[in-house]
Amino acid sequence: MKIRVEVFLKPGVLDVQGKAIEAALGGLGFQGVTDVRVGRVITFDSAAADKATAEAEAKAMADRLLANQVIESYRVEAA
Amino acid sequence: MKIRVEVFLKPGVLDVQGKAIEAALGGLGFQGVTDVRVGRVITFDSAAADKATAEAEAKAMADRLLANQVIESYRVEAA
Repeated sequence: MKIRVEVFLKPGVLDVQGKAIEAALGGLGFQGVTDVRVGRVITFDSAAADKATAEAEAKAMADRLLANQVIESYRVEAA
Repeated sequence: MKIRVEVFLKPGVLDVQGKAIEAALGGLGFQGVTDVRVGRVITFDSAAADKATAEAEAKAMADRLLANQVIESYRVEAA
């Protein structure tokens, strides 16, 4: 089963990558681009028997390794 | 309008972050996790007048700045 974990900085945490991209896009002539945020997506194949188990496992992985919960939040999807 | 650009390494390009995560998850006792791939998501607000324009602009941004097309592919979504 394919699992997707999406990790984003929490609202309010300064996104320096996003700010850098926003400035660079402005420099390239792209106008009207605001609130740029950069996140990670981690996808993998899970051998879990069912969707609920796979999602629970992926949440445990995010809690322990994939996200830094002090500054990041995440969302898990099984497909 | 909210735009999402998702950037992934092309299939066949070694994903070193993915391999590192796979090894680390194994070390934490998560079994049955394979084919870990790591990508980026860039989201932003576009001031473009309609969805088609916003998507075309986002593709131009990805071509010029957001993705390295030698090794990465991307997907644009307007929401």
